[in-house]
Amino acid sequence: MWRRAAVNGPWLSIRLVNAGFRDKGNMSRKVHARRIEGIDKNIWVEFTQLAADYKAVNLGQGFPDFSPPSFVQEAFCKALNGGFPMHQYTRAFGHPNLVKILAKFFSRIVGREIDPMEDILVSVGAYQALFCTFQALIDEGDEVIIVEPFFDCYQPMVMMAGGTICLLYLILKCLEGCGPVLSSADWVLSPEELASKFSPRTKAIVINTPNNPLGKVYQREELQMIADLCIKHDVICISDEVYEWLTYDGTKHVKIASLPGMWERTVTIGSAGKTFSATGWKVGWAMGSGHILKHLKTVHQNSVYHCATAAQEAVAVSFQREYDVFGTEESYFHQLPIHLHEKRLRLADCLKSVGLKPILPQGGYFMIADISNLNVDLTDPSTKDEPYDYRFVKWLIKEKGLATIPVSAFYSPEHRNEFQKYIRFCFVKEDTTLQAAEDILRQWSDSK
Amino acid sequence: MWRRAAVNGPWLSIRLVNAGFRDKGNMSRKVHARRIEGIDKNIWVEFTQLAADYKAVNLGQGFPDFSPPSFVQEAFCKALNGGFPMHQYTRAFGHPNLVKILAKFFSRIVGREIDPMEDILVSVGAYQALFCTFQALIDEGDEVIIVEPFFDCYQPMVMMAGGTICLLYLILKCLEGCGPVLSSADWVLSPEELASKFSPRTKAIVINTPNNPLGKVYQREELQMIADLCIKHDVICISDEVYEWLTYDGTKHVKIASLPGMWERTVTIGSAGKTFSATGWKVGWAMGSGHILKHLKTVHQNSVYHCATAAQEAVAVSFQREYDVFGTEESYFHQLPIHLHEKRLRLADCLKSVGLKPILPQGGYFMIADISNLNVDLTDPSTKDEPYDYRFVKWLIKEKGLATIPVSAFYSPEHRNEFQKYIRFCFVKEDTTLQAAEDILRQWSDSK
Ligand SMILES: Cc1ncc(COP(=O)(O)O)c(C=O)c1O
Ligand SMILES: Cc1ncc(COP(=O)(O)O)c(C=O)c1O
Repeated sequence: MWRRAAVNGPWLSIRLVNAGFRDKGNMSRKVHARRIEGIDKNIWVEFTQLAADYKAVNLGQGFPDFSPPSFVQEAFCKALNGGFPMHQYTRAFGHPNLVKILAKFFSRIVGREIDPMEDILVSVGAYQALFCTFQALIDEGDEVIIVEPFFDCYQPMVMMAGGTICLLYLILKCLEGCGPVLSSADWVLSPEELASKFSPRTKAIVINTPNNPLGKVYQREELQMIADLCIKHDVICISDEVYEWLTYDGTKHVKIASLPGMWERTVTIGSAGKTFSATGWKVGWAMGSGHILKHLKTVHQNSVYHCATAAQEAVAVSFQREYDVFGTEESYFHQLPIHLHEKRLRLADCLKSVGLKPILPQGGYFMIADISNLNVDLTDPSTKDEPYDYRFVKWLIKEKGLATIPVSAFYSPEHRNEFQKYIRFCFVKEDTTLQAAEDILRQWSDSK
Repeated sequence: MWRRAAVNGPWLSIRLVNAGFRDKGNMSRKVHARRIEGIDKNIWVEFTQLAADYKAVNLGQGFPDFSPPSFVQEAFCKALNGGFPMHQYTRAFGHPNLVKILAKFFSRIVGREIDPMEDILVSVGAYQALFCTFQALIDEGDEVIIVEPFFDCYQPMVMMAGGTICLLYLILKCLEGCGPVLSSADWVLSPEELASKFSPRTKAIVINTPNNPLGKVYQREELQMIADLCIKHDVICISDEVYEWLTYDGTKHVKIASLPGMWERTVTIGSAGKTFSATGWKVGWAMGSGHILKHLKTVHQNSVYHCATAAQEAVAVSFQREYDVFGTEESYFHQLPIHLHEKRLRLADCLKSVGLKPILPQGGYFMIADISNLNVDLTDPSTKDEPYDYRFVKWLIKEKGLATIPVSAFYSPEHRNEFQKYIRFCFVKEDTTLQAAEDILRQWSDSK
């Protein structure tokens, strides 16, 4: 089939192309669709690149700098050696072994029988499950309530679906009267304000518990308040629970889908990447009543269709193992939060000792800290129109070699200016990485 | 963190739920968004399930029933053992190693320098690359020209983007005068009809070469005719080339992006799943000028964000290997078509011998066959309102245990009724599978 051409072997020779010409060539019309206008910026693209460029110690993006536990890694290797079906397409809406164990596992958590074939969609990470949810449920003009600070993708995803965002923020309830160490539990919803956001145009509310970036874990009473409003106004709840196993100091994670009357109107989003410290596998899911899930499946079948087979099999085997040891000390869902709890205290202590004011998270693997009483001279002219926290984070990367994320990125552009005094640290990192970050901070503190 | 509750261990007890209630519960409003209306049916969901239910010999869906070559499998295992970065997020728009080798490889094929960071987007299979393309480029009211028969997802994807489809079909040029064996080359575009489809509203044309289901490989002259029209009318060409390495009998695959003036207006879609016989890995890409690709990236970053890391690394290593042996007999891109060529001839002979009239494909791994001179009594009342080929395929699965795909599924609903006399066989199957299919067909033929 392939014959070697005389000079260049089987290859064509490469024309070198003028960079100006190659960019737009002879196209004159508008190329892009309107739905993507205003959603091209992305915090992760920008700050991940910057961290890499400066080879910074990275407490920025939310992924472990260690491997998944060995039973999880072994499950993947075993799957890959499992013959041809592991290398070829599997069921479009989820590998059968995976949806079956997810149903079995979460039936027990939610307290009702979940149908593996109807009530679950396996997705390319929680990210794609969120996308399918918004595309399936949100029409032009539908309102979606989002609580700030929020995982940044909710806003562009709602915009891409043509929805209107209705914002509401968590309020620091004790600006004066809190103890010496603030907790994410001090950030609360105002019941009146929350109620005022629901209208006949409200299609859905998005909550995220444990919350990224704050670490807030919604308590049963708060969830009940949200549930009552959803039921009253016939609104769907999209509950992003990717950090569900990571709670500290006895805080309990409650699934809003388990509250009375909520299963039928909740889409719960989960992530194997976050659950098993394997963010690079990109296996996630949406779970909920079949009458909602069927619409997510329609989006999925017209956008991605299949998810990777062997990774799904490996996640299935890992969940089965967790099912078998659930509630015992062998469980990774038991061990990981214990492990992270140590890192969390260590980071908090370090931040305090250098003059930052950390807010202790109840869950998740992020901690935000107040930088307002640091005295830093941010004179870099290239960042002068940016929010203070963006400028601070860039300074910290460039001058000190430590990468974090500005918290105003988790607020809407409208409110960004009011929340410029926090930065986010990720602590799902090796102790050596945390030590390197500590060294940088202490050295800086000592030199002040 | 986890305490065993008195009775059920750490689990909640499961309420058994009335199936009627669990379905819609107390939700009364319309749940889904308009964009997914009319795109919920899917041929693969239906026929894959049926094939499985009847444990049929499966020449239906397009995936190999063998594993990828060992160098490809080994690359995956090695990647998984490559330490934590292989288990965590990588660059959003494509793992650096992968975009670099794709750029290097295809620069030589296209004959111009491709920028790994600007001109390539790695996606969750070719499927998601197609989705990103339509969402990025097609607005409400934009017209998209699609050539029938076509890979079925183009239509719902364009509809989901709000585009209007403008159909055109390949014409069998020699209803009388062709040789005894028809070839996919006998199906041609009418230049006048093609030209008549372009209008000021035309935003894009989709071509698929080698074509699924027909196996047609567009020749340079046909591609030039399409290119001339694209340039004249300032139209983008979306070229689905997932079977690019699979051509037979000396037929050459030409990339429309390599024709003068076309790089700037072509999005070329590729698939590692099809390239390396690893459909379950779900690694694909879109390639084209950065001024178009940047919009696909915006869709990607708001729908999936990352693709699986280790699979991308393994595909990168596999492409590097193919780069090194390109044009030699060791190349998988050389070996696979030789291997499939045998299977193709074998299937064609078998189909002829039982009275079907196969159309010999120039490329790809499918063969369609005319079933109109078979005399089958299709009395199954459950399928009586369906197209003839749908009924025939269901009969063949249920009565004979052989799964294929009805070709009218690759036509728009408007034209489906005119193309009911073909079924599609997939021949990227083990010889034992092809033998089992042959046995079924011969036994049936003998019993007639
Ligand atoms: C709150 C939240 N939801 C969803 C995701 C995406 O998860 P995945 O990697 O499974 O797509 C993240 C990742 O950081 C997250 O923090
Ligand atoms: C023409 C065509 N395009 C795209 C695809 C999807 O490829 P992938 O599995 O890489 O998503 C297929 C799969 O059958 C196909 O036949």
